[in-house]
Amino acid sequence: MKVDLSKIGTEQQNQNTLNIDKLSTLEMVQLINREDQAVIDAVEKATPQIAAAVDAAYEAVSNGGRLVYIGAGTSGRLGVLDASECLPTFGVGEEAVVGLIAGGDTALRHPVEAAEDSKEDAVRDLKNINFNENDVVCAIGASGRTPYCIGGLEYAKEIGAKSISLACVENSEFFNYADYPIEAVVGQEVVTGSTRMKSGSATKMVLNILSTGIMIKWGKIYGNLMVDVKATNEKLVERARQIIIKATGCSYDRAAELQKLSKDNVKLAIVMEKANLDAEAAMTLLENNQGRISAALENK
Amino acid sequence: MKVDLSKIGTEQQNQNTLNIDKLSTLEMVQLINREDQAVIDAVEKATPQIAAAVDAAYEAVSNGGRLVYIGAGTSGRLGVLDASECLPTFGVGEEAVVGLIAGGDTALRHPVEAAEDSKEDAVRDLKNINFNENDVVCAIGASGRTPYCIGGLEYAKEIGAKSISLACVENSEFFNYADYPIEAVVGQEVVTGSTRMKSGSATKMVLNILSTGIMIKWGKIYGNLMVDVKATNEKLVERARQIIIKATGCSYDRAAELQKLSKDNVKLAIVMEKANLDAEAAMTLLENNQGRISAALENK
Repeated sequence: MKVDLSKIGTEQQNQNTLNIDKLSTLEMVQLINREDQAVIDAVEKATPQIAAAVDAAYEAVSNGGRLVYIGAGTSGRLGVLDASECLPTFGVGEEAVVGLIAGGDTALRHPVEAAEDSKEDAVRDLKNINFNENDVVCAIGASGRTPYCIGGLEYAKEIGAKSISLACVENSEFFNYADYPIEAVVGQEVVTGSTRMKSGSATKMVLNILSTGIMIKWGKIYGNLMVDVKATNEKLVERARQIIIKATGCSYDRAAELQKLSKDNVKLAIVMEKANLDAEAAMTLLENNQGRISAALENK
Repeated sequence: MKVDLSKIGTEQQNQNTLNIDKLSTLEMVQLINREDQAVIDAVEKATPQIAAAVDAAYEAVSNGGRLVYIGAGTSGRLGVLDASECLPTFGVGEEAVVGLIAGGDTALRHPVEAAEDSKEDAVRDLKNINFNENDVVCAIGASGRTPYCIGGLEYAKEIGAKSISLACVENSEFFNYADYPIEAVVGQEVVTGSTRMKSGSATKMVLNILSTGIMIKWGKIYGNLMVDVKATNEKLVERARQIIIKATGCSYDRAAELQKLSKDNVKLAIVMEKANLDAEAAMTLLENNQGRISAALENK
Protein backbone atom coordinates (compact mmCIF):
# COMPACT_ATOMS: atom_id res chain seq x y z
CA MET A 1 0.00 0.00 0.00
CA LYS A 2 1.41 3.36 -1.03
CA VAL A 3 0.37 5.94 1.52
CA ASP A 4 -0.01 9.49 0.27
CA LEU A 5 1.12 11.32 3.39
CA SER A 6 1.34 14.60 1.46
CA LYS A 7 -2.45 14.83 1.70
CA ILE A 8 -2.56 14.40 5.48
CA GLY A 9 -2.86 17.67 7.43
CA THR A 10 -0.42 16.84 10.21
CA GLU A 11 2.25 15.91 7.63
CA GLN A 12 2.18 19.19 5.70
CA GLN A 13 4.82 21.87 6.16
CA ASN A 14 3.89 24.63 8.59
CA GLN A 15 4.49 27.99 6.88
CA ASN A 16 4.86 29.72 10.29
CA THR A 17 7.88 27.64 11.29
CA LEU A 18 9.92 27.36 8.06
CA ASN A 19 12.84 29.14 9.75
CA ILE A 20 12.45 27.86 13.29
CA ASP A 21 16.05 26.61 13.18
CA LYS A 22 17.28 30.20 12.78
CA LEU A 23 15.43 31.77 15.75
CA SER A 24 16.79 32.61 19.18
CA THR A 25 15.91 30.07 21.85
CA LEU A 26 13.27 32.32 23.39
CA GLU A 27 11.64 33.09 20.01
CA MET A 28 11.61 29.37 19.23
CA VAL A 29 9.94 28.53 22.55
CA GLN A 30 7.39 31.31 22.11
CA LEU A 31 6.60 30.19 18.55
CA ILE A 32 5.89 26.61 19.65
CA ASN A 33 3.65 27.91 22.45
CA ARG A 34 1.71 30.11 19.98
CA GLU A 35 1.21 27.13 17.69
CA ASP A 36 -0.08 25.09 20.66
CA GLN A 37 -3.08 27.44 20.88
CA ALA A 38 -4.47 25.46 17.92
CA VAL A 39 -4.74 22.44 20.24
CA ILE A 40 -7.38 24.09 22.44
CA ASP A 41 -9.30 25.36 19.42
CA ALA A 42 -9.25 21.95 17.72
CA VAL A 43 -10.58 20.21 20.84
CA GLU A 44 -13.24 22.92 21.20
CA LYS A 45 -14.52 22.22 17.68
CA ALA A 46 -14.64 18.50 18.47
CA THR A 47 -16.63 18.84 21.72
CA PRO A 48 -19.91 17.47 20.26
CA GLN A 49 -18.07 14.39 18.96
CA ILE A 50 -16.29 13.95 22.28
CA ALA A 51 -19.59 14.22 24.19
CA ALA A 52 -21.14 11.50 22.01
CA ALA A 53 -18.14 9.28 22.68
CA VAL A 54 -18.35 9.90 26.45
CA ASP A 55 -22.02 8.86 26.44
CA ALA A 56 -21.30 5.69 24.46
CA ALA A 57 -18.33 4.70 26.60
CA TYR A 58 -20.21 5.44 29.84
CA GLU A 59 -23.06 3.23 28.64
CA ALA A 60 -20.60 0.38 28.08
CA VAL A 61 -18.53 0.83 31.22
CA SER A 62 -21.50 1.23 33.58
CA ASN A 63 -22.86 -2.06 32.23
CA GLY A 64 -19.73 -4.03 33.02
CA GLY A 65 -17.91 -3.41 29.73
CA ARG A 66 -14.49 -1.85 29.29
CA LEU A 67 -13.11 1.12 27.43
CA VAL A 68 -10.11 -0.23 25.50
CA TYR A 69 -7.62 2.24 24.03
CA ILE A 70 -5.55 0.97 21.11
CA GLY A 71 -2.79 2.87 19.35
CA ALA A 72 0.80 2.84 18.18
CA GLY A 73 3.76 4.97 19.26
CA THR A 74 2.88 8.22 21.01
CA SER A 75 -0.86 7.56 20.59
CA GLY A 76 -0.56 4.11 22.15
CA ARG A 77 1.52 5.46 25.02
CA LEU A 78 -1.01 8.20 25.74
CA GLY A 79 -3.79 5.58 25.83
CA VAL A 80 -1.84 3.46 28.31
CA LEU A 81 -1.10 6.62 30.31
CA ASP A 82 -4.76 7.58 30.49
CA ALA A 83 -5.80 4.05 31.48
CA SER A 84 -3.11 3.85 34.17
CA GLU A 85 -4.34 7.10 35.74
CA CYS A 86 -7.87 5.81 36.26
CA LEU A 87 -6.97 3.57 39.21
CA PRO A 88 -5.41 6.19 41.51
CA THR A 89 -7.85 8.92 40.39
CA PHE A 90 -11.16 7.07 40.32
CA GLY A 91 -10.42 3.73 41.99
CA VAL A 92 -11.13 2.02 38.68
CA GLY A 93 -8.61 -0.40 37.20
CA GLU A 94 -8.33 -2.57 34.11
CA GLU A 95 -11.81 -3.96 34.70
CA ALA A 96 -13.03 -0.66 33.22
CA VAL A 97 -10.24 1.07 31.26
CA VAL A 98 -7.45 -0.75 29.44
CA GLY A 99 -4.63 0.56 27.22
CA LEU A 100 -3.13 -1.55 24.43
CA ILE A 101 -0.08 -0.45 22.46
CA ALA A 102 1.16 -1.87 19.16
CA GLY A 103 4.29 -3.89 19.87
CA GLY A 104 3.34 -4.56 23.49
CA ASP A 105 4.78 -2.97 26.61
CA THR A 106 8.30 -2.80 25.14
CA ALA A 107 6.89 -0.04 22.96
CA LEU A 108 6.12 2.07 26.03
CA ARG A 109 9.83 2.92 26.13
CA HIS A 110 11.31 1.90 22.78
CA PRO A 111 10.03 2.17 19.20
CA VAL A 112 9.02 -1.29 17.91
CA GLU A 113 9.76 -1.61 14.21
CA ALA A 114 6.69 -1.77 11.97
CA ALA A 115 4.42 -2.54 14.95
CA GLU A 116 1.81 -0.02 13.80
CA ASP A 117 1.50 -1.60 10.36
CA SER A 118 -0.24 -4.85 11.36
CA LYS A 119 -4.04 -5.12 11.50
CA GLU A 120 -3.73 -8.73 12.65
CA ASP A 121 -1.73 -7.75 15.74
CA ALA A 122 -4.63 -5.61 16.94
CA VAL A 123 -7.03 -8.53 16.61
CA ARG A 124 -4.61 -10.77 18.52
CA ASP A 125 -4.10 -8.15 21.25
CA LEU A 126 -7.88 -7.61 21.63
CA LYS A 127 -8.52 -11.37 21.77
CA ASN A 128 -5.82 -11.66 24.44
CA ILE A 129 -7.86 -9.45 26.76
CA ASN A 130 -11.11 -11.21 25.76
CA PHE A 131 -12.46 -8.09 24.11
CA ASN A 132 -16.19 -8.67 23.61
CA GLU A 133 -19.43 -7.03 22.52
CA ASN A 134 -19.92 -5.35 25.90
CA ASP A 135 -16.65 -3.45 25.53
CA VAL A 136 -15.97 -0.32 23.50
CA VAL A 137 -12.71 0.21 21.62
CA CYS A 138 -11.14 3.65 21.19
CA ALA A 139 -8.61 3.73 18.35
CA ILE A 140 -6.08 6.56 18.64
CA GLY A 141 -3.87 7.76 15.78
CA ALA A 142 -2.86 11.31 14.85
CA SER A 143 -3.02 10.69 11.09
CA GLY A 144 -6.25 8.68 11.40
CA ARG A 145 -4.95 5.81 9.30
CA THR A 146 -2.82 3.54 11.54
CA PRO A 147 -3.34 -0.03 10.23
CA TYR A 148 -3.10 -1.44 13.80
CA CYS A 149 -6.01 0.80 14.80
CA ILE A 150 -8.09 -0.01 11.72
CA GLY A 151 -7.60 -3.71 12.47
CA GLY A 152 -9.03 -3.09 15.93
CA LEU A 153 -11.97 -1.06 14.60
CA GLU A 154 -12.81 -3.77 12.05
CA TYR A 155 -12.68 -6.46 14.73
CA ALA A 156 -14.99 -4.45 16.99
CA LYS A 157 -17.53 -4.17 14.17
CA GLU A 158 -17.18 -7.89 13.40
CA ILE A 159 -18.10 -8.94 16.94
CA GLY A 160 -20.74 -6.23 17.44
CA ALA A 161 -18.85 -3.99 19.88
CA LYS A 162 -19.09 -0.20 19.76
CA SER A 163 -16.11 1.84 18.62
CA ILE A 164 -14.67 5.32 19.09
CA SER A 165 -11.78 6.80 17.12
CA LEU A 166 -9.55 9.80 17.71
CA ALA A 167 -7.57 11.41 14.90
CA CYS A 168 -6.00 14.86 14.53
CA VAL A 169 -6.88 15.36 10.85
CA GLU A 170 -10.08 15.95 8.90
CA ASN A 171 -11.83 13.17 6.99
CA SER A 172 -9.57 10.54 8.51
CA GLU A 173 -9.78 6.90 7.41
CA PHE A 174 -10.91 6.08 10.96
CA PHE A 175 -14.11 7.98 10.17
CA ASN A 176 -15.17 5.12 7.88
CA TYR A 177 -14.80 2.49 10.60
CA ALA A 178 -15.78 4.00 13.95
CA ASP A 179 -19.27 4.49 15.40
CA TYR A 180 -18.14 7.60 17.27
CA PRO A 181 -15.26 9.28 15.43
CA ILE A 182 -13.53 12.27 17.00
CA GLU A 183 -11.39 14.58 14.88
CA ALA A 184 -9.36 17.24 16.67
CA VAL A 185 -7.89 19.03 13.67
CA VAL A 186 -4.71 20.71 14.93
CA GLY A 187 -3.21 21.63 11.54
CA GLN A 188 0.44 21.43 10.57
CA GLU A 189 2.95 20.51 13.23
CA VAL A 190 5.75 22.90 14.26
CA VAL A 191 8.30 20.36 13.06
CA THR A 192 6.87 18.79 9.89
CA GLY A 193 5.11 15.51 10.66
CA SER A 194 6.11 15.51 14.34
CA THR A 195 2.73 14.38 15.59
CA ARG A 196 4.05 13.99 19.12
CA MET A 197 3.60 17.77 19.40
CA LYS A 198 0.20 19.42 18.72
CA SER A 199 -1.45 16.09 17.91
CA GLY A 200 0.05 14.50 21.03
CA SER A 201 -1.16 17.34 23.25
CA ALA A 202 -4.64 17.25 21.69
CA THR A 203 -4.73 13.50 22.24
CA LYS A 204 -3.76 13.93 25.89
CA MET A 205 -6.52 16.49 26.38
CA VAL A 206 -9.23 14.50 24.59
CA LEU A 207 -8.42 11.31 26.51
CA ASN A 208 -8.45 13.27 29.78
CA ILE A 209 -11.92 14.56 28.90
CA LEU A 210 -13.13 11.15 27.76
CA SER A 211 -12.12 9.20 30.86
CA THR A 212 -12.95 12.02 33.28
CA GLY A 213 -16.35 12.48 31.62
CA ILE A 214 -17.17 8.78 31.92
CA MET A 215 -16.19 8.74 35.59
CA ILE A 216 -18.18 11.89 36.41
CA LYS A 217 -21.28 10.35 34.82
CA TRP A 218 -20.56 7.15 36.75
CA GLY A 219 -20.72 8.90 40.15
CA LYS A 220 -16.96 8.71 40.83
CA ILE A 221 -16.96 12.48 41.39
CA TYR A 222 -19.06 14.27 44.03
CA GLY A 223 -19.27 17.98 43.13
CA ASN A 224 -15.76 18.28 41.74
CA LEU A 225 -14.18 16.01 44.35
CA MET A 226 -12.50 12.68 43.60
CA VAL A 227 -14.40 10.56 46.10
CA ASP A 228 -13.08 7.22 44.79
CA VAL A 229 -9.41 8.16 45.07
CA LYS A 230 -7.21 5.31 46.35
CA ALA A 231 -4.74 6.44 48.99
CA THR A 232 -1.63 4.58 47.77
CA ASN A 233 0.94 7.11 48.95
CA GLU A 234 1.53 9.95 51.39
CA LYS A 235 0.21 12.61 49.02
CA LEU A 236 -2.95 10.64 48.25
CA VAL A 237 -3.70 9.95 51.95
CA GLU A 238 -3.48 13.69 52.57
CA ARG A 239 -5.50 14.44 49.42
CA ALA A 240 -8.20 12.02 50.60
CA ARG A 241 -8.34 13.83 53.93
CA GLN A 242 -8.77 17.20 52.21
CA ILE A 243 -11.59 15.75 50.11
CA ILE A 244 -13.42 14.60 53.22
CA ILE A 245 -12.98 18.06 54.76
CA LYS A 246 -14.22 19.82 51.63
CA ALA A 247 -17.21 17.52 51.19
CA THR A 248 -18.36 17.58 54.83
CA GLY A 249 -16.90 20.72 56.38
CA CYS A 250 -15.46 18.66 59.26
CA SER A 251 -12.18 19.42 61.05
CA TYR A 252 -8.76 18.05 60.02
CA ASP A 253 -8.66 15.74 63.04
CA ARG A 254 -12.20 14.48 62.49
CA ALA A 255 -11.31 13.74 58.85
CA ALA A 256 -8.31 11.71 60.01
CA GLU A 257 -10.58 9.81 62.41
CA LEU A 258 -13.11 9.17 59.62
CA GLN A 259 -10.30 7.81 57.43
CA LYS A 260 -9.41 5.34 60.16
CA LEU A 261 -13.04 4.34 60.84
CA SER A 262 -13.81 3.93 57.12
CA LYS A 263 -10.54 2.10 56.44
CA ASP A 264 -9.51 4.83 54.00
CA ASN A 265 -12.77 4.68 52.06
CA VAL A 266 -13.46 8.33 51.20
CA LYS A 267 -17.04 7.85 50.00
CA LEU A 268 -17.88 5.90 53.13
CA ALA A 269 -16.27 8.55 55.34
CA ILE A 270 -18.35 11.29 53.68
CA VAL A 271 -21.63 9.38 54.05
CA MET A 272 -20.81 8.51 57.70
CA GLU A 273 -20.31 12.18 58.51
CA LYS A 274 -23.12 13.68 56.45
CA ALA A 275 -25.74 11.04 57.35
CA ASN A 276 -24.42 10.62 60.92
CA LEU A 277 -24.09 6.84 60.56
CA ASP A 278 -21.51 4.28 61.67
CA ALA A 279 -19.34 2.56 59.04
CA GLU A 280 -21.57 -0.48 58.66
CA ALA A 281 -24.84 1.44 58.24
CA ALA A 282 -23.23 3.95 55.88
CA MET A 283 -21.85 1.11 53.76
CA THR A 284 -25.29 -0.48 53.46
CA LEU A 285 -26.79 2.86 52.45
CA LEU A 286 -24.09 3.40 49.81
CA GLU A 287 -24.46 -0.12 48.45
CA ASN A 288 -28.20 0.35 48.11
CA ASN A 289 -27.53 3.45 46.00
CA GLN A 290 -25.00 2.08 43.51
CA GLY A 291 -22.16 3.71 45.42
CA ARG A 292 -23.40 7.22 44.62
CA ILE A 293 -23.07 9.66 47.49
CA SER A 294 -25.72 12.09 46.21
CA ALA A 295 -28.31 9.31 45.88
CA ALA A 296 -27.39 7.78 49.25
CA LEU A 297 -27.85 11.10 51.06
CA GLU A 298 -31.18 11.76 49.33
CA ASN A 299 -32.50 8.28 50.19
CA LYS A 300 -31.22 7.92 53.76
CA MET B 1 6.37 15.01 57.29
CA LYS B 2 2.90 16.52 57.29
CA VAL B 3 2.25 17.95 53.85
CA ASP B 4 -0.07 20.95 53.71
CA LEU B 5 -1.67 20.25 50.35
CA SER B 6 -4.35 22.87 51.01
CA LYS B 7 -1.74 25.53 50.17
CA ILE B 8 -0.80 23.99 46.80
CA GLY B 9 -2.54 25.61 43.80
CA THR B 10 -3.30 22.43 41.89
CA GLU B 11 -4.98 20.92 44.99
CA GLN B 12 -7.45 23.75 45.59
CA GLN B 13 -11.10 23.48 44.63
CA ASN B 14 -11.95 25.03 41.26
CA GLN B 15 -14.91 27.37 41.74
CA ASN B 16 -15.87 27.02 38.05
CA THR B 17 -16.45 23.28 38.29
CA LEU B 18 -18.21 22.85 41.66
CA ASN B 19 -21.27 21.39 39.92
CA ILE B 20 -19.60 19.60 37.03
CA ASP B 21 -21.34 16.37 38.09
CA LYS B 22 -24.74 17.97 37.39
CA LEU B 23 -24.03 19.20 33.82
CA SER B 24 -25.07 17.60 30.54
CA THR B 25 -22.31 15.62 28.85
CA LEU B 26 -21.72 18.33 26.25
CA GLU B 27 -21.59 21.11 28.86
CA MET B 28 -19.14 19.03 30.89
CA VAL B 29 -16.88 18.48 27.87
CA GLN B 30 -17.01 22.16 26.93
CA LEU B 31 -16.22 23.23 30.49
CA ILE B 32 -13.10 21.04 30.64
CA ASN B 33 -11.97 22.42 27.26
CA ARG B 34 -12.46 26.01 28.50
CA GLU B 35 -10.39 25.27 31.59
CA ASP B 36 -7.64 23.81 29.37
CA GLN B 37 -7.07 27.28 27.90
CA ALA B 38 -5.16 28.00 31.13
CA VAL B 39 -2.56 25.45 30.01
CA ILE B 40 -1.48 27.53 27.01
CA ASP B 41 -1.43 30.72 29.07
CA ALA B 42 0.62 29.09 31.84
CA VAL B 43 3.22 27.80 29.39
CA GLU B 44 3.32 31.23 27.70
CA LYS B 45 4.20 32.90 31.01
CA ALA B 46 6.94 30.33 31.57
CA THR B 47 8.61 30.74 28.16
CA PRO B 48 11.67 32.65 29.49
CA GLN B 49 12.28 29.88 32.06
CA ILE B 50 11.80 27.20 29.40
CA ALA B 51 14.24 28.96 27.04
CA ALA B 52 16.89 29.06 29.78
CA ALA B 53 16.36 25.34 30.40
CA VAL B 54 16.64 24.56 26.66
CA ASP B 55 19.97 26.39 26.50
CA ALA B 56 21.34 24.59 29.56
CA ALA B 57 20.19 21.17 28.36
CA TYR B 58 21.52 21.78 24.84
CA GLU B 59 24.89 22.75 26.30
CA ALA B 60 25.01 19.43 28.19
CA VAL B 61 23.68 17.20 25.42
CA SER B 62 25.87 18.64 22.66
CA ASN B 63 28.89 17.96 24.86
CA GLY B 64 28.12 14.28 25.30
CA GLY B 65 25.94 14.58 28.39
CA ARG B 66 22.35 13.41 28.73
CA LEU B 67 19.05 15.03 29.63
CA VAL B 68 17.55 12.80 32.32
CA TYR B 69 13.88 13.19 33.19
CA ILE B 70 12.82 11.98 36.63
CA GLY B 71 9.31 11.93 37.98
CA ALA B 72 6.57 9.85 39.63
CA GLY B 73 3.17 8.80 38.30
CA THR B 74 1.84 10.87 35.41
CA SER B 75 4.89 13.16 35.50
CA GLY B 76 7.28 10.22 35.30
CA ARG B 77 5.28 8.63 32.48
CA LEU B 78 5.32 11.86 30.48
CA GLY B 79 9.11 12.06 30.91
CA VAL B 80 9.53 8.50 29.65
CA LEU B 81 7.13 9.28 26.78
CA ASP B 82 9.10 12.35 25.74
CA ALA B 83 12.41 10.47 25.92
CA SER B 84 11.01 7.55 23.90
CA GLU B 85 9.90 9.91 21.13
CA CYS B 86 13.39 11.33 20.58
CA LEU B 87 14.71 8.23 18.78
CA PRO B 88 12.13 8.03 15.96
CA THR B 89 11.84 11.83 15.69
CA PHE B 90 15.45 12.94 15.92
CA GLY B 91 17.45 9.74 15.65
CA VAL B 92 18.66 10.28 19.21
CA GLY B 93 18.32 7.53 21.80
CA GLU B 94 19.14 7.05 25.46
CA GLU B 95 22.68 8.32 24.88
CA ALA B 96 21.06 11.79 24.90
CA VAL B 97 17.60 11.68 26.52
CA VAL B 98 16.57 9.25 29.27
CA GLY B 99 13.35 8.94 31.27
CA LEU B 100 13.31 7.55 34.81
CA ILE B 101 10.09 6.85 36.69
CA ALA B 102 9.70 6.25 40.43
CA GLY B 103 8.95 2.57 40.95
CA GLY B 104 10.62 1.53 37.69
CA ASP B 105 8.97 0.46 34.46
CA THR B 106 6.12 -1.34 36.27
CA ALA B 107 4.91 2.17 37.11
CA LEU B 108 4.47 2.96 33.42
CA ARG B 109 1.26 0.94 33.59
CA HIS B 110 0.40 0.44 37.25
CA PRO B 111 0.61 2.75 40.28
CA VAL B 112 3.50 1.69 42.54
CA GLU B 113 2.66 2.27 46.18
CA ALA B 114 4.63 5.08 47.84
CA ALA B 115 7.22 5.10 45.03
CA GLU B 116 7.16 8.89 44.83
CA ASP B 117 7.97 9.30 48.52
CA SER B 118 11.57 8.08 48.47
CA LYS B 119 14.49 10.45 47.89
CA GLU B 120 16.90 7.53 48.13
CA ASP B 121 15.26 5.70 45.22
CA ALA B 122 16.05 8.61 42.93
CA VAL B 123 19.72 8.51 43.93
CA ARG B 124 19.81 4.76 43.32
CA ASP B 125 18.06 5.11 39.93
CA LEU B 126 20.44 7.91 38.84
CA LYS B 127 23.49 5.91 39.96
CA ASN B 128 22.15 2.93 37.97
CA ILE B 129 22.44 4.91 34.75
CA ASN B 130 25.82 6.36 35.82
CA PHE B 131 24.41 9.88 36.04
CA ASN B 132 27.40 12.22 36.15
CA GLU B 133 28.43 15.87 36.12
CA ASN B 134 28.12 16.10 32.31
CA ASP B 135 24.42 15.20 32.47
CA VAL B 136 21.50 17.44 33.34
CA VAL B 137 18.54 16.22 35.37
CA CYS B 138 15.00 17.49 34.80
CA ALA B 139 12.71 16.81 37.77
CA ILE B 140 9.01 16.79 36.88
CA GLY B 141 6.20 17.06 39.41
CA ALA B 142 2.91 18.94 39.19
CA SER B 143 2.91 19.97 42.84
CA GLY B 144 6.61 20.80 42.79
CA ARG B 145 7.35 18.81 45.94
CA THR B 146 7.70 15.11 44.97
CA PRO B 147 10.32 13.66 47.35
CA TYR B 148 11.65 11.34 44.60
CA CYS B 149 12.35 14.41 42.45
CA ILE B 150 13.92 16.40 45.28
CA GLY B 151 16.21 13.44 45.95
CA GLY B 152 17.32 13.61 42.33
CA LEU B 153 17.83 17.37 42.41
CA GLU B 154 19.91 17.11 45.61
CA TYR B 155 22.05 14.36 44.10
CA ALA B 156 22.67 16.43 40.95
CA LYS B 157 23.88 19.34 43.09
CA GLU B 158 26.06 17.01 45.18
CA ILE B 159 27.95 15.70 42.14
CA GLY B 160 28.07 19.07 40.33
CA ALA B 161 25.55 18.35 37.56
CA LYS B 162 23.12 20.98 36.31
CA SER B 163 19.41 20.64 37.07
CA ILE B 164 16.07 21.71 35.61
CA SER B 165 12.70 21.37 37.34
CA LEU B 166 9.15 21.55 36.08
CA ALA B 167 6.21 22.22 38.39
CA CYS B 168 2.68 23.48 37.77
CA VAL B 169 2.43 25.69 40.86
CA GLU B 170 4.02 28.94 41.99
CA ASN B 171 6.90 29.03 44.47
CA SER B 172 7.32 25.27 44.33
CA GLU B 173 9.78 23.48 46.59
CA PHE B 174 11.67 22.48 43.43
CA PHE B 175 12.54 26.16 43.03
CA ASN B 176 14.91 25.87 45.98
CA TYR B 177 16.85 22.98 44.47
CA ALA B 178 17.02 23.43 40.67
CA ASP B 179 19.38 25.63 38.66
CA TYR B 180 16.71 26.18 35.98
CA PRO B 181 13.24 25.94 37.54
CA ILE B 182 10.19 26.10 35.27
CA GLU B 183 6.77 26.87 36.74
CA ALA B 184 3.75 26.53 34.45
CA VAL B 185 1.04 27.73 36.81
CA VAL B 186 -2.20 26.19 35.53
CA GLY B 187 -4.40 26.94 38.55
CA GLN B 188 -7.00 24.65 40.06
CA GLU B 189 -7.77 21.41 38.28
CA VAL B 190 -11.26 20.65 36.91
CA VAL B 191 -11.53 17.71 39.30
CA THR B 192 -9.90 18.79 42.56
CA GLY B 193 -6.29 17.63 42.76
CA SER B 194 -6.46 15.66 39.49
CA THR B 195 -3.09 16.82 38.24
CA ARG B 196 -3.24 14.42 35.32
CA MET B 197 -5.47 17.05 33.65
CA LYS B 198 -4.26 20.66 33.20
CA SER B 199 -0.92 19.95 34.88
CA GLY B 200 -0.44 16.81 32.77
CA SER B 201 -1.20 18.67 29.55
CA ALA B 202 1.12 21.55 30.50
CA THR B 203 3.84 19.02 31.30
CA LYS B 204 3.37 17.35 27.91
CA MET B 205 3.67 20.70 26.15
CA VAL B 206 6.70 21.91 28.11
CA LEU B 207 8.60 18.65 27.58
CA ASN B 208 7.76 18.77 23.86
CA ILE B 209 9.21 22.27 23.71
CA LEU B 210 12.25 21.32 25.79
CA SER B 211 13.32 18.30 23.75
CA THR B 212 12.35 19.81 20.39
CA GLY B 213 14.21 23.02 21.27
CA ILE B 214 17.37 21.10 22.17
CA MET B 215 17.22 19.12 18.94
CA ILE B 216 16.63 22.20 16.78
CA LYS B 217 19.66 23.89 18.34
CA TRP B 218 21.60 20.66 17.79
CA GLY B 219 21.02 20.69 14.01
CA LYS B 220 18.55 17.77 13.99
CA ILE B 221 16.06 19.99 12.15
CA TYR B 222 16.71 21.61 8.77
CA GLY B 223 14.21 24.45 8.24
CA ASN B 224 11.30 22.74 9.96
CA LEU B 225 12.08 19.28 8.57
CA MET B 226 13.03 16.27 10.71
CA VAL B 227 16.20 15.32 8.87
CA ASP B 228 17.35 12.76 11.44
CA VAL B 229 14.11 10.75 11.43
CA LYS B 230 14.66 6.98 11.60
CA ALA B 231 12.48 5.07 9.13
CA THR B 232 11.36 2.20 11.37
CA ASN B 233 7.95 1.63 9.79
CA GLU B 234 5.95 2.19 6.60
CA LYS B 235 4.74 5.62 7.68
CA LEU B 236 8.23 6.79 8.59
CA VAL B 237 9.76 5.54 5.31
CA GLU B 238 7.14 7.57 3.47
CA ARG B 239 7.63 10.54 5.79
CA ALA B 240 11.39 10.43 5.15
CA ARG B 241 10.72 10.50 1.39
CA GLN B 242 8.48 13.55 1.74
CA ILE B 243 11.20 15.29 3.76
CA ILE B 244 13.74 14.68 1.00
CA ILE B 245 11.28 16.05 -1.57
CA LYS B 246 10.53 19.14 0.51
CA ALA B 247 14.18 19.85 1.26
CA THR B 248 15.48 19.36 -2.28
CA GLY B 249 12.50 19.82 -4.60
CA CYS B 250 13.29 16.50 -6.32
CA SER B 251 10.66 14.12 -7.72
CA TYR B 252 8.99 11.29 -5.78
CA ASP B 253 10.91 8.66 -7.70
CA ARG B 254 14.24 10.44 -7.30
CA ALA B 255 13.58 10.67 -3.55
CA ALA B 256 12.98 6.92 -3.43
CA GLU B 257 16.24 6.37 -5.30
CA LEU B 258 18.10 8.67 -2.91
CA GLN B 259 16.70 6.69 0.02
CA LYS B 260 18.13 3.52 -1.49
CA LEU B 261 21.53 5.09 -2.31
CA SER B 262 21.84 6.70 1.13
CA LYS B 263 20.64 3.55 2.92
CA ASP B 264 17.68 5.48 4.37
CA ASN B 265 19.84 8.30 5.70
CA VAL B 266 17.74 11.41 5.09
CA LYS B 267 20.49 13.96 5.83
CA LEU B 268 22.83 12.15 3.49
CA ALA B 269 20.19 11.97 0.76
CA ILE B 270 19.59 15.73 1.00
CA VAL B 271 23.30 16.60 0.83
CA MET B 272 23.81 14.16 -2.09
CA GLU B 273 21.06 15.88 -4.05
CA LYS B 274 21.78 19.49 -3.14
CA ALA B 275 25.59 19.26 -3.43
CA ASN B 276 25.44 16.80 -6.36
CA LEU B 277 27.71 14.28 -4.65
CA ASP B 278 27.74 10.49 -4.35
CA ALA B 279 27.00 8.88 -0.99
CA GLU B 280 30.61 8.59 0.10
CA ALA B 281 31.59 12.17 -0.72
CA ALA B 282 28.38 13.53 0.82
CA MET B 283 29.04 11.55 4.01
CA THR B 284 32.56 12.97 4.31
CA LEU B 285 31.20 16.47 3.83
CA LEU B 286 28.53 15.94 6.48
CA GLU B 287 31.01 14.45 8.94
CA ASN B 288 33.34 17.40 8.48
CA ASN B 289 30.46 19.69 9.44
CA GLN B 290 29.21 18.00 12.63
CA GLY B 291 26.33 16.43 10.73
CA ARG B 292 24.72 19.81 10.04
CA ILE B 293 23.22 20.11 6.57
CA SER B 294 23.29 23.94 6.50
CA ALA B 295 26.98 24.03 7.38
CA ALA B 296 27.83 21.21 4.94
CA LEU B 297 26.17 23.00 2.03
CA GLU B 298 27.88 26.30 2.90
CA ASN B 299 31.30 24.65 3.13
CA LYS B 300 31.16 22.30 0.17
